[in-house]
Amino acid sequence: MRLLVVNVNTTESMTRSIGAQAVAAAAPGTEIVPLTPAFGAESVEGNYESHLAAIAVMEAVRSHPGPFDAVIQAGYGEHGREGLQELLDVPVVDITEAAASTAQFLGRSYSVVTTLDRAVPLIEDRLALAGLSARCASVRASGLAVLDLERDPSAAVEAIVAEAVAAVEVDRAEVICLGCGGMAGLTERVVARTGVPVVDGVAAAVTIAESLVRLGLRTSKVRTFAPPRPKRFTAWPPGAAAVVGAG
Amino acid sequence: MRLLVVNVNTTESMTRSIGAQAVAAAAPGTEIVPLTPAFGAESVEGNYESHLAAIAVMEAVRSHPGPFDAVIQAGYGEHGREGLQELLDVPVVDITEAAASTAQFLGRSYSVVTTLDRAVPLIEDRLALAGLSARCASVRASGLAVLDLERDPSAAVEAIVAEAVAAVEVDRAEVICLGCGGMAGLTERVVARTGVPVVDGVAAAVTIAESLVRLGLRTSKVRTFAPPRPKRFTAWPPGAAAVVGAG
Amino acid sequence: MRLLVVNVNTTESMTRSIGAQAVAAAAPGTEIVPLTPAFGAESVEGNYESHLAAIAVMEAVRSHPGPFDAVIQAGYGEHGREGLQELLDVPVVDITEAAASTAQFLGRSYSVVTTLDRAVPLIEDRLALAGLSARCASVRASGLAVLDLERDPSAAVEAIVAEAVAAVEVDRAEVICLGCGGMAGLTERVVARTGVPVVDGVAAAVTIAESLVRLGLRTSKVRTFAPPRPKRFTAWPPGAAAVVGAG
Amino acid sequence: MRLLVVNVNTTESMTRSIGAQAVAAAAPGTEIVPLTPAFGAESVEGNYESHLAAIAVMEAVRSHPGPFDAVIQAGYGEHGREGLQELLDVPVVDITEAAASTAQFLGRSYSVVTTLDRAVPLIEDRLALAGLSARCASVRASGLAVLDLERDPSAAVEAIVAEAVAAVEVDRAEVICLGCGGMAGLTERVVARTGVPVVDGVAAAVTIAESLVRLGLRTSKVRTFAPPRPKRFTAWPPGAAAVVGAG
Amino acid sequence: MRLLVVNVNTTESMTRSIGAQAVAAAAPGTEIVPLTPAFGAESVEGNYESHLAAIAVMEAVRSHPGPFDAVIQAGYGEHGREGLQELLDVPVVDITEAAASTAQFLGRSYSVVTTLDRAVPLIEDRLALAGLSARCASVRASGLAVLDLERDPSAAVEAIVAEAVAAVEVDRAEVICLGCGGMAGLTERVVARTGVPVVDGVAAAVTIAESLVRLGLRTSKVRTFAPPRPKRFTAWPPGAAAVVGAG
Amino acid sequence: MRLLVVNVNTTESMTRSIGAQAVAAAAPGTEIVPLTPAFGAESVEGNYESHLAAIAVMEAVRSHPGPFDAVIQAGYGEHGREGLQELLDVPVVDITEAAASTAQFLGRSYSVVTTLDRAVPLIEDRLALAGLSARCASVRASGLAVLDLERDPSAAVEAIVAEAVAAVEVDRAEVICLGCGGMAGLTERVVARTGVPVVDGVAAAVTIAESLVRLGLRTSKVRTFAPPRPKRFTAWPPGAAAVVGAG
Repeated sequence: MRLLVVNVNTTESMTRSIGAQAVAAAAPGTEIVPLTPAFGAESVEGNYESHLAAIAVMEAVRSHPGPFDAVIQAGYGEHGREGLQELLDVPVVDITEAAASTAQFLGRSYSVVTTLDRAVPLIEDRLALAGLSARCASVRASGLAVLDLERDPSAAVEAIVAEAVAAVEVDRAEVICLGCGGMAGLTERVVARTGVPVVDGVAAAVTIAESLVRLGLRTSKVRTFAPPRPKRFTAWPPGAAAVVGAG
Repeated sequence: MRLLVVNVNTTESMTRSIGAQAVAAAAPGTEIVPLTPAFGAESVEGNYESHLAAIAVMEAVRSHPGPFDAVIQAGYGEHGREGLQELLDVPVVDITEAAASTAQFLGRSYSVVTTLDRAVPLIEDRLALAGLSARCASVRASGLAVLDLERDPSAAVEAIVAEAVAAVEVDRAEVICLGCGGMAGLTERVVARTGVPVVDGVAAAVTIAESLVRLGLRTSKVRTFAPPRPKRFTAWPPGAAAVVGAG
Repeated sequence: MRLLVVNVNTTESMTRSIGAQAVAAAAPGTEIVPLTPAFGAESVEGNYESHLAAIAVMEAVRSHPGPFDAVIQAGYGEHGREGLQELLDVPVVDITEAAASTAQFLGRSYSVVTTLDRAVPLIEDRLALAGLSARCASVRASGLAVLDLERDPSAAVEAIVAEAVAAVEVDRAEVICLGCGGMAGLTERVVARTGVPVVDGVAAAVTIAESLVRLGLRTSKVRTFAPPRPKRFTAWPPGAAAVVGAG
Repeated sequence: MRLLVVNVNTTESMTRSIGAQAVAAAAPGTEIVPLTPAFGAESVEGNYESHLAAIAVMEAVRSHPGPFDAVIQAGYGEHGREGLQELLDVPVVDITEAAASTAQFLGRSYSVVTTLDRAVPLIEDRLALAGLSARCASVRASGLAVLDLERDPSAAVEAIVAEAVAAVEVDRAEVICLGCGGMAGLTERVVARTGVPVVDGVAAAVTIAESLVRLGLRTSKVRTFAPPRPKRFTAWPPGAAAVVGAG
Repeated sequence: MRLLVVNVNTTESMTRSIGAQAVAAAAPGTEIVPLTPAFGAESVEGNYESHLAAIAVMEAVRSHPGPFDAVIQAGYGEHGREGLQELLDVPVVDITEAAASTAQFLGRSYSVVTTLDRAVPLIEDRLALAGLSARCASVRASGLAVLDLERDPSAAVEAIVAEAVAAVEVDRAEVICLGCGGMAGLTERVVARTGVPVVDGVAAAVTIAESLVRLGLRTSKVRTFAPPRPKRFTAWPPGAAAVVGAG
Repeated sequence: MRLLVVNVNTTESMTRSIGAQAVAAAAPGTEIVPLTPAFGAESVEGNYESHLAAIAVMEAVRSHPGPFDAVIQAGYGEHGREGLQELLDVPVVDITEAAASTAQFLGRSYSVVTTLDRAVPLIEDRLALAGLSARCASVRASGLAVLDLERDPSAAVEAIVAEAVAAVEVDRAEVICLGCGGMAGLTERVVARTGVPVVDGVAAAVTIAESLVRLGLRTSKVRTFAPPRPKRFTAWPPGAAAVVGAG
């Protein structure tokens, strides 16, 4: 089985890091293919960059020669999963949703700890649309930017642990989701300090994608995620005039 | 006062039609500037095209020399309003939200009648995120594609009226929102057949944008819609390597 | 265009103040007609007085010789808008709803800052029934009575600003609605201290009423706001036995 | 123990009928005092009349010499209960809420069958504000006016039974609440035809009021239902200028 | 009228205490029959013990020779009420629901103060399933175990009062429900310290059960609580192989 | 890895069938251990039997000598998962929740098709408590009893397919969950007739349990699912007086 794991930003080192997390979680026989979008921002920390990432991720997947069995969108709280589901028949798993869905099997409520405060509304909206917010105790921000995590992970630990502890003690979360692709290395320390299970979105997404593939399940095509209708595009994708869709 | 009214697809005739609706609703002294995105689909009828339109609308607005006092995103149930709000200080009004918000002053519940069934989930999601779904009785689809409306508006009337009547009689809607930029010409006929007020999103958005401008109100910048952080972009916008954000 | 702006209490000076706010927000060519109810309390700060105001406002409007194009009910969190909508064909705009509806175009969430703590439940209930509470971050009370604002506005500023700041910092509001007809003069100071947009309900209601009138929209009469059925009344209105309704 | 049972309209025969229902449900030793408002409509079938009834019921109770131990507001889906709770220390029981609250002990979901379609939104709003709508399967209207029930009860049975049967079979209600003061006589026939328990609001309210009194429970006065503040009234109550409130 | 009042644990002294509370609340002519389950835990403080109590309570009631007119399940936030409703035609009243339902007639919102923190989720779940959580301001825990209350009631007062005060001042509760069968003796002290009405679940349940019986109301049998279907049981009840159900 | 798969009824043939489904879904190296409770009903079709099954499943797991890595509770819409989570550190997966959680990755909404109408409320309650109902389009019943499926599976197909088709066409479900342990053999036929993905709860639960084990995740023990407190039990488990809990 081959899974595409698509970063949402253009920082190659982060793609490699996400790929390594995915490999660590994958079952024997699962091949992980990390992808970096050809255009977009070096980190995604707001709606503008996330809207751009949405379409960049789609282009990255569309231009991959294949075959692949499922796609993981490895950005936390990002736009675009719905578009990918239209374009593909194979399952698409968003790491925000994968983490929350997994957390719900482990405790009555979960919190997400993310980077910047401005990411909180995006994550809340994604969980709401995914029908996963009823048991979300809180989404908390450490105040650190995405690239701060990459540059100096050890310095980031204290801020993240502090929010995780507050989520457990104040918001009554029973599980913590680390809400950023770059936080995966912190899992053990957060477990040690909070005493609750900590879910990494990339790892959760890998096992969910593997499960869907093994069960032979694919995206429903009857309505919301039906293939795009055939139509004329102007100046898209960059450098080409194309007609896409189920023609 | 000058309002940008941005079409979400690349069909110029539809931009002109939307512009004419906006002009008809505008107060004396309001200048309407219709814009067509430089890239994207000829009609937007699903998530893939809508995600693409989101970023195309942002680029169209960013490349406009200005000045302008507010922006209207003239697509029904589309992605992207949040990104525009980050990029701009002036108000951004989405026609889906403008229509619903206006309808709520006229009756206890409203329904949206749109084109294809696959547009229904997009509209429902937009209303939910905008906090406008509590009084939404239903979102119904006529089964007509966006360009069908443009090509033969008179043939589209019956299908749309039938859904509007069902919304009033079955779903107990007290107001109808016509859920497609191209439906504006049908307003009177739907009023005549249903006996309830009918709200056109473009017209509603124009008066709301005018009101916000006249009251001196601008998008809140404290959190969700703070300007993008300065950062490096790869291959974006098409043909340039750029750093954007509050630098 | 002529708009009736109806105070909910019997204090004439407050009617004049509300009228002045409305005039300041009105477009050229809009005539503002301030009205004071013929009976009721000098200030409305609870359910008993608000229920009385509901019917006093209706009688004030019914006894106005007309014509007029829309009615604004200028009390925050009061009962009675639904009854007015039954009695009239022209639009009725409640300032609580106008402020919230306007705020939603400016930020992801809004808070209301009002006078006494006992007003909070009334405002919450009105927003809930109006379908406008999903994005309401909080309703906060300054502890000041309505007439305190009128008697000494400068002394009221600090208490109100303190709650507005808490709404932004603690409750994560991105927009503030000033929840009392008498607070309009404080708008600039709250903006200066919080850094977020501040919406005055009377001003918002004026622009919404103007918009509805200009678009030719009127209250839906198919169900909830159908005219009262013709029937016999005892000792009402005061001094007369009347039959009202669509006869 | 003495309970005031206040009709919301001015039709004396309906007050007597409500009083008889209350007597039939009362425990030995409970005295039922039926009251008719001094002003208002002969029947209450919409917001205008209901807003008027709200204040008429309050005046009827305020002008009663007392003593009494609790008050029952005997109108279905009417405004005003909150104002009564401010004016009184003794419990106030609304029959809409009493019926729903009782029904919830008997089945997983309940429906209300009322008179005119225009009463449905009022009942829905009352249940929503009272926190009793989560298990409400539907509110259905028979199409009959309030006074039709009084004039010819046997003719009303079929229409009401038909809606009750639909509530059970289509909406999956497990209990029926008869949503009009005048429907009490129909209880047995609806039970016979639907096979589910049928709750009469007046009877339910009597037993709830008795229970609250016997347990020594009174309305909470800490916030929402604190006594009105002392203040000046203009031309109210009719014929007097008064200062009311906790002076 | 004879009411079974069933303790959920096997501590006889607690059964006697619950029985005494029930007798104190009962009307003249009501006979209270306290029951202790034949198996289970000495106190119920979590899901495992509560699941066991559910079936133990059912066996206790099934093995009672009868007749009886209603059953009260006297545990706070416990599983099992639905099963009892299937087994019986007479009303079943859960004290958690009885307290909440009663509190809603006294104030706009209520809080529950219970024993251990781990009981909070059980109570929240029960209120949610019962449709009684919309007006629940909070469920707070004093940190005391069930048997602590029995062993040293006076020592428990301070912890409970402190939570009740916080519920009123921080969570804006207007009524307090004492969320444990053993807390009944504390009612007066909590009233004295908070100034709000305090509802004891056992007392509330007794008056509700009496009311339902007097009104001739019984559990709806059309769907959710239809009698168990006849079928074969293995090794149940302990010591017997039985066929139960509507045979 | 070894997974206990526990049937909720005492019918051995059904345990074998569930075990076979689990084996078919399991990864290489996963050992499936099917368990049948020592007491309870031959089929579970209502609250009484489900409450009994809850405690029977717990006893079956407690008396298993182990070791095992996770437990699957293989009944649809049953009570008891929370108790199992208290008793164990290893993950517990309920098939109702596993199916819904999996379905949400495949389409925007899902429906459950179950056996008897009386099972619908149990499934709805389980989904609500699990925070999985926001995207549930409907729970529909085929009218067939659990054992009908086992006795004559082919005869059951038509009734189940008809409900699945209605779920897709009327309720707009995009994925179907087969809501009974005995329905697994029907998956392919429902796929063929509806054109949407069909999720079998046992298979989904196996892959989720495997994923949780492989990721090293265990049930959170901080609050809701903390181990039972040590205490005295009367006559439980059958034949023994025991003290359980974290002693």
